[in-house]
Amino acid sequence: MAIADKIVGMMERSSWIRKMFENGAKLKQQHGADKVFDFSIGNPNVPPPKEFFDALEETVKLEEPNKHGYMPNAGYPAVRKEVADYVSREQGVELGVEHVIMTAGAGGAVNVALKTIMNPGDTVITSTPFFVEYQFYADNHGGSLKLVPTKEDFDLDVAAIEAAIDATTCALIINSPNNPTGRVYPESTVRDLAAMLEEKSREIGRTIYIVSDEPYRKIVYEGVKVPSLLKNYKHTMASASYSKELSIPGERIGWLIIGPEADDAENLAAGAVLCNRIIGFVNAPALMQRVVGRLQGKQVDVEIYKRKRDALYEGLTKIGYELYKPEGTFYLFPKAPGGNDIRAVEALTDELVLTVPGKGFGSPGYFRISYCVEDRVIEGSMGGFERAFKKLQE
Amino acid sequence: MAIADKIVGMMERSSWIRKMFENGAKLKQQHGADKVFDFSIGNPNVPPPKEFFDALEETVKLEEPNKHGYMPNAGYPAVRKEVADYVSREQGVELGVEHVIMTAGAGGAVNVALKTIMNPGDTVITSTPFFVEYQFYADNHGGSLKLVPTKEDFDLDVAAIEAAIDATTCALIINSPNNPTGRVYPESTVRDLAAMLEEKSREIGRTIYIVSDEPYRKIVYEGVKVPSLLKNYKHTMASASYSKELSIPGERIGWLIIGPEADDAENLAAGAVLCNRIIGFVNAPALMQRVVGRLQGKQVDVEIYKRKRDALYEGLTKIGYELYKPEGTFYLFPKAPGGNDIRAVEALTDELVLTVPGKGFGSPGYFRISYCVEDRVIEGSMGGFERAFKKLQE
Repeated sequence: MAIADKIVGMMERSSWIRKMFENGAKLKQQHGADKVFDFSIGNPNVPPPKEFFDALEETVKLEEPNKHGYMPNAGYPAVRKEVADYVSREQGVELGVEHVIMTAGAGGAVNVALKTIMNPGDTVITSTPFFVEYQFYADNHGGSLKLVPTKEDFDLDVAAIEAAIDATTCALIINSPNNPTGRVYPESTVRDLAAMLEEKSREIGRTIYIVSDEPYRKIVYEGVKVPSLLKNYKHTMASASYSKELSIPGERIGWLIIGPEADDAENLAAGAVLCNRIIGFVNAPALMQRVVGRLQGKQVDVEIYKRKRDALYEGLTKIGYELYKPEGTFYLFPKAPGGNDIRAVEALTDELVLTVPGKGFGSPGYFRISYCVEDRVIEGSMGGFERAFKKLQE
Repeated sequence: MAIADKIVGMMERSSWIRKMFENGAKLKQQHGADKVFDFSIGNPNVPPPKEFFDALEETVKLEEPNKHGYMPNAGYPAVRKEVADYVSREQGVELGVEHVIMTAGAGGAVNVALKTIMNPGDTVITSTPFFVEYQFYADNHGGSLKLVPTKEDFDLDVAAIEAAIDATTCALIINSPNNPTGRVYPESTVRDLAAMLEEKSREIGRTIYIVSDEPYRKIVYEGVKVPSLLKNYKHTMASASYSKELSIPGERIGWLIIGPEADDAENLAAGAVLCNRIIGFVNAPALMQRVVGRLQGKQVDVEIYKRKRDALYEGLTKIGYELYKPEGTFYLFPKAPGGNDIRAVEALTDELVLTVPGKGFGSPGYFRISYCVEDRVIEGSMGGFERAFKKLQE
């Protein structure tokens, strides 16, 4: 056997996703790309803001020695200062340079956070539906993921999470705004969660961390504010990415912030810097660090996403689909008409509308629509959504 | 306890390096940076070639949709094609796009390679002196590193490696040109190694891979050619980086190449692409992929490094230091006068000459000089090297 047994298993399990993509590509070839309505992937289609291109051009022009060389593994102190100052203002916390580690996106940051705290056999709790990569991330560091369903409205079920905690629990991954539901967890939920975790940490005699994965924090509508885990729970490590807010996911740039009041915060930060290095990242990409350092608070035009959300939400609701109207992200997570998500996704695929079954997010019975697509894709898909809906009622 | 036990241990073990850096920083503050001769770190100081800046500027100006967005996790097919074509010509192998995976530097590539093949409890063999990060890399994926000393002239000891192989051996990490010795393993050694591994793989009933870590392939002098592991041993995964050849280590860009004739090569490549994604890299940084795609075969002026090597080699030899004259890299690895590397490094530090003890590379009794420094640092250090040498003879 050439490949590690575990990787073989992972490849088999993720092969249905590959098949889906292959199938999508085949359909596009057969029918023409403009006849296929592809809502399957979350690749931001709103262009980066003008400020990004300006900052990139200016940064490229800067003349200084060692500009593309190594810097401290945590990132350029000046960039980390920009991030610390901005997030301090944004979330009402007091961060210093020493609490910020620049990372290869939020995916990098979550892995660094987990590696820093996980002992073999530890479990990490997350709520379903969930971003399926978390399962790999927990496994990467010798532990596993425990899944707890959210409530009917996709809000966290704090009592269910409490019941799932045991002596192996080292952390919760909280993802708000959530992929795939678009749900922003309200302040009251966050407070209840924090109080419960304080209590349970005492009870089990170990600190339960929150790894707050926030790549969609800026992709919210109608002035919604995303409640801060960093502010509400001191044992929080927050991860973020410029992938969605600046539409630059290919560049792999984000950060990890260590809660300044966390027990042993200094060591926790030092451990995270070590882990950032030894996982193989070494440091976040140099040029993009400097670029995003200049772009604190800048973001894509979310009104474009909002119009797409509204068009789809209204269109689908009218047809009869049941779905939560999300506060953020660029995802919708409707109930599968008829209840079977695989069947629903197949029926939609027959109409050349590509979506992802909820099974892939730990929530069968739903399906995900990623609406970072051109408006014409939304308009063109409505007939297919309607025909599939009718078929699934039969 | 907040941090994972393992990470606490790693932090303690690497704390002497931190102390050394802190000590160096303190000395620079006390005596002035220009009075301290810092040979401790390998941060390339030769500027990137003009072609890099041109390619960066042109790439930044390119106008196309989704330019900073996701691409296939393995990287842009066009960039991988450039790499495949160049390395095919350079190393006399036949590579296609499907054998190349763009990665976050060579550190990223080695981690992806190991994750793809390691089962729990597997061991990876490498030769000492060695790049100390390999220990972390093997541990990252649930295994461990087994160390086998090289010969007196730093060439691989194939018989000793053979004796170290057992049923847990999944791979060898080969690093030529070598950090810290600068040794390029000769073609005859590479052939012996390959023949031995073919034989031992049959004997233990599993494929033993070579992970050939080649970030210094282009940093060689006097027309030396680095023999190709890819060509000589079919079960090779080669990792490389543009960090040293273009002097851009902060940008984290490199590649992993899967030996096209390896058993099950297609699955091996697919596994590596999965691992590249799930470790948290997702993909190599987009912009830098395009930049290096245009720079195949371009490199820094190695004559600058050669002059530094020669000046140090001649100066140190004259004083009485015993050292191998390396074919490549920007490191020298002399014997510690008196035999005790910690004592030697301390005596040098007293002279404000900063180096790294061989203990840190698994080879006590030696010390490492990293000569990616200004010429004035080399010139200014000679008095200190001489005084320390005399003191260590007493």
